[in-house]
Formats: sequence, C-alpha cells, structure tokens
Amino acid sequence: MNLEKLFKPSSMAVVGVSKSNPLSPGRIILVKNQFEMNVKVHGIHPKGGEIEGIPLYEKLDELPEIPDLLVIAVSAEDTLEYIQQCADLKIPAAIIIGGGFAEIGGEGMKRQEKLEKLAFDNDIAVLGPNCIGVYAPPLVDTIFLPTERITRPPKGSVALISQSGGVLIDQFFVKFKERNIGVSTAVSIGNRAVVDETMLLEYFSKVDKETSNIAFYLEGFKDKRARDFLKAAKESEDTVIAFFGGITEQGRIATQSHTASLAGNSKILFGALKQYHVIHPHSERELLTYLKVYDVLSQKKQPFGQKRIVYGNVAILSVSGGHGVICSDMLQKYGLTPVRFTEEEKKQMHDILNPVAREIASFNNPIDLTGSVLDRDIENMISFLSDIERIECIILLLLPYPPNISFQIGRRIANVVVSKKKPIIAFLPYVEKYSLIIESLELSNIPVFHEIKEAVQAVAALKLRTRIYNLKKNNIFWE
Amino acid sequence: MNLEKLFKPSSMAVVGVSKSNPLSPGRIILVKNQFEMNVKVHGIHPKGGEIEGIPLYEKLDELPEIPDLLVIAVSAEDTLEYIQQCADLKIPAAIIIGGGFAEIGGEGMKRQEKLEKLAFDNDIAVLGPNCIGVYAPPLVDTIFLPTERITRPPKGSVALISQSGGVLIDQFFVKFKERNIGVSTAVSIGNRAVVDETMLLEYFSKVDKETSNIAFYLEGFKDKRARDFLKAAKESEDTVIAFFGGITEQGRIATQSHTASLAGNSKILFGALKQYHVIHPHSERELLTYLKVYDVLSQKKQPFGQKRIVYGNVAILSVSGGHGVICSDMLQKYGLTPVRFTEEEKKQMHDILNPVAREIASFNNPIDLTGSVLDRDIENMISFLSDIERIECIILLLLPYPPNISFQIGRRIANVVVSKKKPIIAFLPYVEKYSLIIESLELSNIPVFHEIKEAVQAVAALKLRTRIYNLKKNNIFWE
Repeated sequence: MNLEKLFKPSSMAVVGVSKSNPLSPGRIILVKNQFEMNVKVHGIHPKGGEIEGIPLYEKLDELPEIPDLLVIAVSAEDTLEYIQQCADLKIPAAIIIGGGFAEIGGEGMKRQEKLEKLAFDNDIAVLGPNCIGVYAPPLVDTIFLPTERITRPPKGSVALISQSGGVLIDQFFVKFKERNIGVSTAVSIGNRAVVDETMLLEYFSKVDKETSNIAFYLEGFKDKRARDFLKAAKESEDTVIAFFGGITEQGRIATQSHTASLAGNSKILFGALKQYHVIHPHSERELLTYLKVYDVLSQKKQPFGQKRIVYGNVAILSVSGGHGVICSDMLQKYGLTPVRFTEEEKKQMHDILNPVAREIASFNNPIDLTGSVLDRDIENMISFLSDIERIECIILLLLPYPPNISFQIGRRIANVVVSKKKPIIAFLPYVEKYSLIIESLELSNIPVFHEIKEAVQAVAALKLRTRIYNLKKNNIFWE
Repeated sequence: MNLEKLFKPSSMAVVGVSKSNPLSPGRIILVKNQFEMNVKVHGIHPKGGEIEGIPLYEKLDELPEIPDLLVIAVSAEDTLEYIQQCADLKIPAAIIIGGGFAEIGGEGMKRQEKLEKLAFDNDIAVLGPNCIGVYAPPLVDTIFLPTERITRPPKGSVALISQSGGVLIDQFFVKFKERNIGVSTAVSIGNRAVVDETMLLEYFSKVDKETSNIAFYLEGFKDKRARDFLKAAKESEDTVIAFFGGITEQGRIATQSHTASLAGNSKILFGALKQYHVIHPHSERELLTYLKVYDVLSQKKQPFGQKRIVYGNVAILSVSGGHGVICSDMLQKYGLTPVRFTEEEKKQMHDILNPVAREIASFNNPIDLTGSVLDRDIENMISFLSDIERIECIILLLLPYPPNISFQIGRRIANVVVSKKKPIIAFLPYVEKYSLIIESLELSNIPVFHEIKEAVQAVAALKLRTRIYNLKKNNIFWE
C-alpha cells in the first residue's frame, strides 16, 4: 500500500462541510487547507453552493479532477459509503476524522471490519478512523482545531506518529515548538484500522526523504503486528524511538476507555524494543531531549562530519561553579566520563584566560571560568578543548548574566565550532531576552537545552545512537 | 545573633565603588539599590565625590547615620579592616561580596578565621565572603549583575538559601519566574564564615513572618553543624526542603574546586534528612514542583481551609483521552489512587454533560470529556466532583484547543473552586496565548503546571506535607 498520497497529495477533497457551523471539523479543515496550506482543495456538500469563496460540489464524481486524498468528516454510517466511492473513483488515500467504529464496540466493531476489507481490497490508504489526521507541511493540515489556538512545530527531520490526537497536538507540538524540534510529518493514527504504525515506520524509513528520525507515541501495538513493527525497525536506517502510554495497571484501565488497546506486559515489551534497537525513553522529557539532539545533529545531515561519540568522554565548560557541580553529579548516571586534564593542559588553559579570571578560575573538569570571563576567553577555551583528541564532546554551561559577556557570544562560539567541528551541547537559561544567543548557536547546529540534566542526557543520547549504529551495522540482534 | 538587619535594613552603605568602571560589583550594587530598591543607600569612596547623583563619603564614620548594613566589595585584605569598623561603629550586619578567604586555602583560611572571630566577638551578622548576598524585595538587592540581564522571581512565601550564587540566580530565579513561584527572601551564603544555613533556618522559621517554606541548595553542611541544622528543622513550623549538589563522586571532585565542602556520605545524609522531616526532592524539577504547590497552597495561607490531603485519592478530569492515560500511568508511582465511581455517579455525570459530549465521553477515572466539551460542562463536572467526599483533590488536564472552550474558562473554573473549596491542581500547556487562563486560575490559588508529571507530583507533595505535619505534631522522630 502506497502512503505517499496521504502526505504529499497534489489535490484533496473534504466531505462533511457544514454551512451553518463554522467550527465544524470538516469546515475548519476545508478553510484551513485552502488559505494556509499548499494543497489544492475541493469541498463537497449535498446542496452545492460555496463557503468563503470555495465552490462546493454536490458529489465526488462531479469534481473537476480525481483528488489524491479524501478527508471524511461525516457520520460513521455515511463514512463507509464514501470509502466505497474512493474505490469506484480510484482515489488512493482517505482520512477518516469521525468516531463510531471499533472504539465504541458492538456495531462499531463490525463497521470497522467492513472498512478494513474495503480499504485493503481496493488498496486505499485509509488513516483513522477517530483521528485528527496529518500535519504535513507545507501541503496538508487536517487538524480540525483553529490554527490560532494550537501551536505548530517547525519543519525538521522527525516523523511523529501518535495514537492520541490530543497528545500529538499538545504534548508534542507545544513542546517541539518550545524546544525548536523540527517535524517532517505528524500523523494521528486513531483506530489504525488500515494504516498502522508498522506501515508508517516502513514508509518514513524507505520512501520519505525528509525524515531521519521516527518517533511514536503508542498505547500498544496493533494486534499481532508487534513482530512486523520490530522487523521494520531493525531494517530502518533512521533512528526509531517509541514512547508508550498505558503501561501501568491504572494506565491500562484508562486506555480501555480511550482507544481500546493494551500495552500488554511492559517488561516483555521494553525488552523487545531494546533487542531491536528501538530507543525507549524513560520519560516524555527524555524523549524530547533525544529528539532534539537527533534532529539538530541528524544522521542524514551530520553537520560535524562522520565522527561519532563512542565513549562519552566530555569536558564541562562553565561560568558558574554550582552549575559545574550539578552537571558533574549527573555524568555517571548517564554513562559519561569527564576527561582528566594534564598539568600542562591546565597551565595552558590558565595562560589563555584574561588576567582577572585566570586567578580565580578552576581548571579541573568541570572548568569554571567564573563570572569574570570575557567573550574571547570562551572562544579560546572552546578552541583549545576542541583540539584535545580524547574529548568527544564539550558541554557548555553558559549564563549570559555577567556584563562582560556580550550578546554576540552565540555567533562567536558558533564560528569556532563550525571550523573546529567538535560536537558541543549547550545549556542556556530559557529566557526570552537570550533568544538571540540561543538562535545563533542553533543556526550552527549547536543544540541548546534549558536544563543541565537535558544537556547531559543529550550527550548520552548521541552515545546511544552510535552504539545502535554499530550493532545494526554488524547485524547484531537478540531475537 | 540577630539577622534581621541583613534582610530588612532601613539604611545601607557600600564600599568598593569604582568611579572608572561602571560594571564593578560595588558600583552596580550602589546604583541598583538607589534607583530600584527601597533601602536608603550611601556610597563610600576614599576620595569622596559622587556617582550618578549619589554622594560618596570618604570614610564610614563620616556618614550622616550609622547604617544597618554594610556591603563590602573590596579586596580580601581591606575587607577585615571594614569589619573592624563595623565593630567600632556598631554596624550590626555586613555582606562580603569578594573572595580570597577559605576557598583559596592557605593565607585565605587564616583570614577567614580572623573574620569569624571578629564577627562573633562583636555580634555582627556577616554574610559571605565569596557570595552575591541577598535579594530581599522590596528593600535590598546586592546581586552585582545588571538587573536587565537577570530574571527576578515574584514575591511569595519561599525563603531561598543557596551555597552557589550562580545556581541561585539561574537555576532558581529563572525557573521560579517561569513557574510563578514567589520568594520572600533569597540568600547566597558563599563561604558561610559566620551566618550559615542553620542560623538562616532559625531566622526564617522564627522571625520572618512572610516565609512559610524554606528551601536550600547546599553542597554539604557547615562543619559539625549538621546536627544543629536537623534540630532547627525539627522545631520549624515551616516546610523545610533541601536539595544537594556534589553528592556523586564526580560532583564531589567538582565541589572541591568550587566551595571547598563535601556532601559527605549521601546515604547517611538522606537518611538523616528524612528522619528530621526535611523534604529531599530527587531532582531539581521535583524541588520546583514542591515549592510551587507549597507556595500557592502555603500552610500559613490555607486558601481551601484546614482540610488536608491524607490518602491521595484523586479524580482526573481531562478533555483528551491520551492525557488521561499518561496521567493515570503516573499515579501509582507517586502513591496516589484514582477513586472508583459508582454506576449512579457515572449516570449523573453523563446527564450533566451536553448532548454531543455525553455520548462520546468516558466516565471512568480518568474522566475524558472529549474535545466536544463546553465551558459549562467543565464547571458542572468540577462542581459535581467537589461534592464527592472521598475525592481529596481533582487533577484537571485542560487543553484550550477546542473552539468551544472560551478564554473565560479560567475565571469560570476559579469561581466554582472558590465556593467549593476542593483542592484542584491543573495542567495547561505552557503557551503564551493561554496566559490569561493560567493567571485566572492562579489568582484563585489553583496551581497550574505545564507537565502532566508535575501536576501528579504536586498532589503527592501535598500528601507528603500532611504526613510530615502529623508526625511533627505527634513529635515522632527517629534520632
């Protein structure tokens, strides 16, 4: 089944467009795609007419062209009829927004079975039902909530697949935007009657060129598809990350009322994920940290070249002693090691610094440059540390509070890093006024985090990615 | 030793004011307090003159009054002389900004011993050396960084004491502001030669009326003072929270280069804290969550009356199924229990809702009202749940994305909560455009968190506070 038309249609049609309620899902989708996205949009309404200048056609077969994608926002009963029309007209892809299928049991179960048969028999890529569909910039956005109410992530390398629409637009979109994590395509799979997580994993791995990281929020695998998913993950050259909800007893009770799926025995699940090199973060925060660093330093992009972080040997460069302490406390937990400096290296660092700072600075690891530091000290130190071969990554804890640190510091650091090509992970406070500095760094592929812990986790994430890369290369799995 | 003049001086003098360098610490402190704070400020300069309209006196004994507080920003050698003058002139409090004492070893150690003797013999409350001093709004701010570069927290109930100045202004100030956690007084103790954590704990417990929560960032206790600290914590009616840096092997190495103190054996330390009911969060994030909920629902304020959360029985009210699942997954870990609803209660909830939502909503716990919810449904549900006695707290997961939820929702919820007096903890996305809703809730003492996990932790924090309250009341300690 070809999923490309779901995400890259040249034209689409919407059914279920209300003329009386401007907040109805179908109408929001029609108007949003017409005025905000790049796909060509047609509206369907049994009585024809127009909405906000968009002509409405009475029937699908009256459209001036066969659309690539049909978005269906009508009742469950009418939905099946439209899927039949997709079959008749050879419309290759459809998104079903509404519910009333397997999630309500009984009658709905049977309806979903019919839907599945129809779709598979006619090779129609059906997404949903009971979903918010896709956000595939710049072409399509079927999220039926007003754009000004939600937050959209920037464009990037992460394909994001969620079993819950609410989690997708809130937990992910909001936090992606906050952290500047870029999305290639976001997909809400709902009941996943036809298109499921495994098909999406294959599509984003093999077909989609923009994606290099594939992330899932799931509350369980589709029936009997766990093995297929793991096999697809094994074969994927992208980084595959899965986060699971509904893994505790309480959570399981909650999922039954939600999307009727069970994460099952979480111990077996997590073991299997590990065996097949699917990264499974311990918390949502860890997931976001991983995605951020994998997006900025993506495997396809490799801004600092082929060199990978193998051992986790780091240097911590700080302007605050306390921050160095907190960072050091976390290294061990995340499997990282501070390199030891020789007396000669310490002397060289001492000599690099300005005369005031050098007397009070500390040249152990963490290096504490103190608040007496100047821009050029930071530049010089990064340059010096970059030349030490056994340092794989620099963790920079940068507090721009001292008045001697200028607002050009981001660009100045970036210039050094771009020429030295040593990976550097930065911590900066999450404060609007420092966004200039943060942007300067991120434009040059220096990931900036706003928690010391996340900066440390990010280095650990790069080390983990190297390990998985090597295991996959040598075809090591534990089936 | 009376510490009040350190935090509530009616007048202060600053020595170490540079006429040539506008960024020198003493000068920043002089100007900042003159123009931004409410204390009466005098400047001292060996040649007199004036800076930005502030007259400078050549000597301390030429001031028009004996100041309550002397801020000293001169070299280590000259510092002792000024402390001697405090003794001679009966100035009751001093803050020493500069370093050059115990933290450099050798000569500095001896200097610090002299300082201690001088201060204790003459009963001078000396803060520092090697610190950024105090932020005690609206009177005093000795943080020698430009105000526009740093972030200040709002006024509130938390006394904040930090061994690291950098951690105080960055990790705490920035995140307090972000989370709207209020500070009564913030103190950087530096080398704590004279005024130490135990004296501050006693002062904020017994003297300061604005404080009801006392939080510490420490890298270890002052020599042989651990027992005194624990005894003071035991006797405090305030909530005492301590977070430690330098507790791992790597962190310990880092503290040696920083403030020359060791957290020692962390297992023994954490055991002792627990015995004396000092709350010890596992992470900085947990610390912030605790402080937020303890600040908004402070023991002195008790906005919802005397009733306390004893068992941790909660109801989860959500508009997104996935959010309910994620929240449910966390309850067990944090020792909380979802109440079970009777069939009768489920029927009542069903009948309360609007006709569209009631058919697709789920009335288990978590309750999922779905995106078809209206403002009045949320009001009615909170009102209904508030009347169920066995629910101790409602966790509200509110996503204002559906167009039917109005921007008045915060005030409407607040009105219900104020009359029903049932504690409610809210989750809302951290998005600028929803700040109106967030503020409406927080103005009525509904703490709002931006991570589901933090909302759950906050309820656990209230349960923990009840437990400590009861243990202290019954004088149960394990010495």
